Amino acid sequence: MNSYRSLRIALLGAGSVGSQVARLLLEQGDEFAARVGAPLELVGIGVRDIDAKRDAPLPRELLTTDLAGLVAGADIVVELLGGIEPARSLLLDALAAGADVVTANKALVAAHGPELFDAAEIVGAQVAYEAAVGGAIPIIRPLEHSLAGDRVTRVMGIVNGTTNFILDRMHTEGSSLADALATATELGYAEADPTADIEGYDAASKATILASLAFHTEVPATEVHREGITGVTDAMVAQAERSGRVLKLVAICERLPGDAGDRVSARVHPVSLPATHPLAAVHEAMNAIFVTAEAAGDLMFYGAGAGGPETASAVLGDLVSIARRHVAGGPGTAGSTHANLPLAPFGDVVARHELAMSVTDRPGVLAAVAGLFSEQGVSVESVRQDPGDGSAALVLGTHAASEARIAAVLEALEAHDDVERIDSVIRLID
Amino acid sequence: MNSYRSLRIALLGAGSVGSQVARLLLEQGDEFAARVGAPLELVGIGVRDIDAKRDAPLPRELLTTDLAGLVAGADIVVELLGGIEPARSLLLDALAAGADVVTANKALVAAHGPELFDAAEIVGAQVAYEAAVGGAIPIIRPLEHSLAGDRVTRVMGIVNGTTNFILDRMHTEGSSLADALATATELGYAEADPTADIEGYDAASKATILASLAFHTEVPATEVHREGITGVTDAMVAQAERSGRVLKLVAICERLPGDAGDRVSARVHPVSLPATHPLAAVHEAMNAIFVTAEAAGDLMFYGAGAGGPETASAVLGDLVSIARRHVAGGPGTAGSTHANLPLAPFGDVVARHELAMSVTDRPGVLAAVAGLFSEQGVSVESVRQDPGDGSAALVLGTHAASEARIAAVLEALEAHDDVERIDSVIRLID
Repeated sequence: MNSYRSLRIALLGAGSVGSQVARLLLEQGDEFAARVGAPLELVGIGVRDIDAKRDAPLPRELLTTDLAGLVAGADIVVELLGGIEPARSLLLDALAAGADVVTANKALVAAHGPELFDAAEIVGAQVAYEAAVGGAIPIIRPLEHSLAGDRVTRVMGIVNGTTNFILDRMHTEGSSLADALATATELGYAEADPTADIEGYDAASKATILASLAFHTEVPATEVHREGITGVTDAMVAQAERSGRVLKLVAICERLPGDAGDRVSARVHPVSLPATHPLAAVHEAMNAIFVTAEAAGDLMFYGAGAGGPETASAVLGDLVSIARRHVAGGPGTAGSTHANLPLAPFGDVVARHELAMSVTDRPGVLAAVAGLFSEQGVSVESVRQDPGDGSAALVLGTHAASEARIAAVLEALEAHDDVERIDSVIRLID
Repeated sequence: MNSYRSLRIALLGAGSVGSQVARLLLEQGDEFAARVGAPLELVGIGVRDIDAKRDAPLPRELLTTDLAGLVAGADIVVELLGGIEPARSLLLDALAAGADVVTANKALVAAHGPELFDAAEIVGAQVAYEAAVGGAIPIIRPLEHSLAGDRVTRVMGIVNGTTNFILDRMHTEGSSLADALATATELGYAEADPTADIEGYDAASKATILASLAFHTEVPATEVHREGITGVTDAMVAQAERSGRVLKLVAICERLPGDAGDRVSARVHPVSLPATHPLAAVHEAMNAIFVTAEAAGDLMFYGAGAGGPETASAVLGDLVSIARRHVAGGPGTAGSTHANLPLAPFGDVVARHELAMSVTDRPGVLAAVAGLFSEQGVSVESVRQDPGDGSAALVLGTHAASEARIAAVLEALEAHDDVERIDSVIRLID
């Protein structure tokens, strides 16, 4: 077909994604060669333990524990190790040697993306990471290229399949959070230690990546406000359903306009969405990302957010694209962080809130509670009071108010004698 | 920021999309320069009539009727003229001179895409056409790059906003096709001559483009089977609703597996979708494209399929991406048509069908009609018969059967004495 030499591909990691990538590279070699214009030669698969059990049988002669040696001879390094080290050092070495990099490592890109991108720019190499967010869903390339001529105002995504599965089960089957988590673990949707998922760390890494791309601004992971789903109760789910709403854990990346110029906010927390919202129809462990841009309007990208073959699809798409560029010649191109918009503190973010609490069942309590809201400048939109046995259940919906004001309201409520307990606080999306 | 010289941008066409592109380039010049790494200088806007009325006021000194002269001096040509000529000749001249090209011209890409891509490859130039399908929705780049490592099996899309608006109104408001078309024209969704939309020509151009990309195979526009919506009646809409279904005009591009290897089919026709299908929820003039790939599974891309600012977003995204490559150096890369799968004739395509007809109301007719199906090897899945005044209404649902067999059944039905009229034929999607 043509005489371009083989491209030497080093694969790091042979877990559920890595073994699929290796299998497809080996099985569909001719197809990849035709698409790229040169053969892709898998020169080795770096693993920690050569004898570990794999999802797919891999040729033993390709397996090696000498990851540094494997990287040294490669044209393109595909990193599927996860975690920060040794992935970071290996990729920096690879880039310094002029190799291109494909990675699915969201934690690494979130924490050290700029370091990798800078290292790539120095030598004209490429770093691709489509698989780091939304699994098989193309979202990195659309944000980096397709929307490069537009001004993105908001990215709101269901970017963690585990938590979406759990919340979906709580809604559709009335499961408790603990039962839904157990089912997720059983079905392989949740890991033995589910902390990264259910506490929102995984979604926060993705929020960092999405916000940085969407707003051409470095958004450190440490600046992403993060709340997981462990505070979501059966009562909150039931309350949402009574209002025709659905609870979802979302990553929200927003451009906040202001007199002193635009600022950027990135945050992860549960929200209550109208059942008619496109994201409300995202069930099981699926992912979807809703993007709003000034000219393009609303866009949505939907698909499988995880899974070995699904994630391998995104990794191989990156690999083919990068290999084509390698064959064509010329350096890689990437988005930039030129805009460097300031980050808005979480307290400045504005949303409608719904607060449920248990209060003393006596006349005048509602007025007293409502007074605490107005003292903080928070306007109450709706009130529902259900009398109980000695105490009453009170649900207040606010007009849009800043997180700082809501935090002050919560502090005042907690200090108030008639407020027995704050049962839940949830942010409402229209 | 850096010292790269300005990139000279020639814009051809100043209609609703062109005037938005010009406006954004002029208003947000600094932002584009920062994203690209070099200023984008709009050197001229080629128009037929300098004094024509425009959607947005454009600097008169930029307007010119000398399109060939404008193209001759450009680094990047943005073509928004529409139609085949003079667009084709101008772009071939531009590519021959080494300029890159951005176009939103689906008719041109569908009819002459390979000619343009070949011309670009000779000089290492780039051709980008994200806006040609799905308006603001990123779908070309995802198919060309993100899914480049996967095997796409089907692309099914609502890619024409006008016909989706009309069918949506027929469902949601009970409008007749004529009334819904009148409303679409009034709202600017349909052109004075709506033929290209309602007869499916526009969707067929897009099917050509999508099928070529998805299957790495040249699919000539003449090979796309095309049926528009003019045959859709109120009765068909009502019948679909009784079955919990929705009628949509879709472009379907499919890889058909076979003993002698895979073949490709591209076609445009109305289908009946379950109301729970993600495409059924695409209302008004919105577009959505549902992509199924072996590893990635189901993906969906949703957004505005037309409109000046929306389409300008896609054009400018292409422009920024192409300009970055221009600044970085090195030739463009593109997908290929290396696979060159054979095309399957429409008669080989398989689908479930629903046929409604009026028959003589006498005993034995159902058996006679059913016999015509079985003679052609078409298996009947369901029958509903409503007696009328002398004649009966018969609705037969088939199991999956080839279009050729269904065509033979229709011929036999039309020749049968007891069949007064075929009222409708619709293909069912599960």
